[in-house]
Amino acid sequence: MSAFALSAICEKIGVEFHGEEKEIIGLHTLSEANEQEMSFFNSAKYISQLPLTKAGAVLIESKYAHLLPSTSTAIFTDEPYLKLALASALFAPKISTLSTTPSIDENCDIDKRVIFGQNVTIGSGVTILGGSYIGDDVIIGDNTLIHANVTIYHHCQIGKNSIIHSGTVIGSDGYGFAHTKMGEHVKIYQNGNVIIEDSVEIGANCAIDRAVFGSTIIKKGSKFDNLIQIGHNCIIGEHTLLAGQVGLAGSTSTGRNVVMGGQSGSAGHLHIGDFAQIAGKGGVTKSLEAKKIYAGFPAIEHRVWLKLQAKIHALLKK
Amino acid sequence: MSAFALSAICEKIGVEFHGEEKEIIGLHTLSEANEQEMSFFNSAKYISQLPLTKAGAVLIESKYAHLLPSTSTAIFTDEPYLKLALASALFAPKISTLSTTPSIDENCDIDKRVIFGQNVTIGSGVTILGGSYIGDDVIIGDNTLIHANVTIYHHCQIGKNSIIHSGTVIGSDGYGFAHTKMGEHVKIYQNGNVIIEDSVEIGANCAIDRAVFGSTIIKKGSKFDNLIQIGHNCIIGEHTLLAGQVGLAGSTSTGRNVVMGGQSGSAGHLHIGDFAQIAGKGGVTKSLEAKKIYAGFPAIEHRVWLKLQAKIHALLKK
Amino acid sequence: MSAFALSAICEKIGVEFHGEEKEIIGLHTLSEANEQEMSFFNSAKYISQLPLTKAGAVLIESKYAHLLPSTSTAIFTDEPYLKLALASALFAPKISTLSTTPSIDENCDIDKRVIFGQNVTIGSGVTILGGSYIGDDVIIGDNTLIHANVTIYHHCQIGKNSIIHSGTVIGSDGYGFAHTKMGEHVKIYQNGNVIIEDSVEIGANCAIDRAVFGSTIIKKGSKFDNLIQIGHNCIIGEHTLLAGQVGLAGSTSTGRNVVMGGQSGSAGHLHIGDFAQIAGKGGVTKSLEAKKIYAGFPAIEHRVWLKLQAKIHALLKK
Repeated sequence: MSAFALSAICEKIGVEFHGEEKEIIGLHTLSEANEQEMSFFNSAKYISQLPLTKAGAVLIESKYAHLLPSTSTAIFTDEPYLKLALASALFAPKISTLSTTPSIDENCDIDKRVIFGQNVTIGSGVTILGGSYIGDDVIIGDNTLIHANVTIYHHCQIGKNSIIHSGTVIGSDGYGFAHTKMGEHVKIYQNGNVIIEDSVEIGANCAIDRAVFGSTIIKKGSKFDNLIQIGHNCIIGEHTLLAGQVGLAGSTSTGRNVVMGGQSGSAGHLHIGDFAQIAGKGGVTKSLEAKKIYAGFPAIEHRVWLKLQAKIHALLKK
Repeated sequence: MSAFALSAICEKIGVEFHGEEKEIIGLHTLSEANEQEMSFFNSAKYISQLPLTKAGAVLIESKYAHLLPSTSTAIFTDEPYLKLALASALFAPKISTLSTTPSIDENCDIDKRVIFGQNVTIGSGVTILGGSYIGDDVIIGDNTLIHANVTIYHHCQIGKNSIIHSGTVIGSDGYGFAHTKMGEHVKIYQNGNVIIEDSVEIGANCAIDRAVFGSTIIKKGSKFDNLIQIGHNCIIGEHTLLAGQVGLAGSTSTGRNVVMGGQSGSAGHLHIGDFAQIAGKGGVTKSLEAKKIYAGFPAIEHRVWLKLQAKIHALLKK
Repeated sequence: MSAFALSAICEKIGVEFHGEEKEIIGLHTLSEANEQEMSFFNSAKYISQLPLTKAGAVLIESKYAHLLPSTSTAIFTDEPYLKLALASALFAPKISTLSTTPSIDENCDIDKRVIFGQNVTIGSGVTILGGSYIGDDVIIGDNTLIHANVTIYHHCQIGKNSIIHSGTVIGSDGYGFAHTKMGEHVKIYQNGNVIIEDSVEIGANCAIDRAVFGSTIIKKGSKFDNLIQIGHNCIIGEHTLLAGQVGLAGSTSTGRNVVMGGQSGSAGHLHIGDFAQIAGKGGVTKSLEAKKIYAGFPAIEHRVWLKLQAKIHALLKK
């Protein structure tokens, strides 16, 4: 883990440093950052979190700085999100080809053409077929089966008794950018990870992005079909079923036993309640209640959608 | 191929065994099972098939057992589908890294970094680029070209003069689960395969699932674009064209020369007639007639869809 | 690069040759072909291009041949597109496993399990993780990062400071076929390439097809999420953002700073203007103006779409 003096960070990202020097080891949101982490404030939506933050430092416009607690050093900038992006690069682990052979239990069956990064931990009874890549610091639980040509990026964790099908990518960078006034996009390095719990099955050619901070989580017993997109910081509840080509944008969460039909999708930053079902091709644009069935785009209750379809078709007779 | 005494299967899946001992070598549907296979009955929809089944044994609720022919041993259970799932694990081939170098014709061009399972059969004039994985018992026909980083699971068959583009996965497990009363999902091992016939081209990063029983079939001359999802037990008719990001749910079939536009999809267990065309983003929810053009979701005839769109837009003027 | 006598091409594709012998080194459209290239005319839409073409030869129905300039040899056929397909096979480079180790700068970090074709050029400071395949004549610019299990087909170019995530396929064949009267599809070999400019990021498991002639181009600063489909000959403008599971059909172009939401898509052969935005699940069916926001399928202006949704929902009360 990298650590930087706060003054050094400020210098690297081009902002002035005032106040107490401290060591910063990472970045996080206002609500989750601790005293060794830097945060940022760029949306009035989160203003109530300012007085409560435990962040050691916060990138913030000067006019809001008085709302911060004394434990948070204000770092003044008119572009907090852009400066966050610049800072994120400092904390990104170096992507390299360095490799160390992990310790492998005798009950494992690991193809010699699996490519390992450094410091990989593999449980007992694990099978990994050839052509898969297992990045730095990945942890794989007992009895998990990883098919050929899977890619697991650094720091991700896979539980026990899980199955990952070929072509699937776990832990690729979430889709996060700050934007300059000239319309350029500056990468926010995604320094979180993906946690896949026990008894999960992920189909072929899925893409599950790592979190920007913290973790993207697929909870135990969930089963994914093929070609599924999971954005950064999503949390998928236990025993959730996602059919082929489902896509969830970032920071959306589901309750347990949610079912989403083929080619359905969801916008980001919303919640789909326990046992909710979304029909194929449905598009979720706001949070959905538990135990109901939804359909259409924008998704509405299925029984209403059926009525609406009847009304729409009745137009043909007019 | 695995074989088990019927009494041993019953013990392993936790049901009582009564009746004639016999050897069981696999699982199949009521209509397709033979005397050495076990089947299951869990939907009244298939009740007419009970007296006709040739299955050696059937997982069935006791109240229906009298409908079975004397050649089928009834295995009583209140949860036939869940017990089928447990039985399916017994017949699943062990996924392993065992590898034997196949016999390779001098007219072939096979990269030395292709990974083979055991007992692979390769025709004449075949090209396979590096990073591809060819599983146990796969058969590849003459003059077929397999690009880099393709994955073909065990027991699948690829015809002659075909092209498979990079990242595509053929034979990954179909999406099939039985469900416990507690909401957990129990894997139904997918012990079928995929058969790709001659002169087929499959684009990049597609996922074509193996059948639960029998075969998923892509018939001769069909051409697939990229990122296409084919569910288990689909049968794609000859010379069918599927554009990018099309998805078909399980057990759907198409006639010959069907055309599906980009991002269109179909629910499962239906048939799309010969020469039918579905416009981009269309969603098929019931079987479609031959030689017609369809659009929209739920898909209707294109000419009706055009009228409907006009009527819908007329609402704006009211 | 292959070269053929025009008479030899005619013989191979089964058409009669009359006129001046010349050497042909490739195929291209009427507007782009030069005197060493052969073109084709199969749509009245392009008739105005006939007198202006610089093509050395043109596959054409005899009745239109008088419109060609004297520098273009007319090759008579009733099926110009089908004959083009046959000719395209002649110019397709042989896909082979031949490999030569490229020259690698000491500032690079290239895994020894990367698979190279022949004549690859790699800049300074490039990182390529294991399991990736880099085809013949590929050029990769300085400081670009290619994650594990990426596939880049022959002749493609990747700029500087770009990032390609795992599972992505760049340069797979575009989806192009001519059709026989019997309903068979004849491959049009895709002899163009893909050019990805500087500071581009491509997510996981995307598929970006090579051009049939010329180049598919992703301009500088564009950022793609996961599972994105880009058809042949698309041109994506600078700083364009494509969210997860977006799909563009062939020959569509975008201006700069276009934004397309998740699961949106576009038909082919159209243009999306600078700074246009398309909401998630939107489907573009005709060219869109710059600086406007669109939604729905078929995509209309977002503010109109909102009104229309209100009108549609009002039907429920009738």
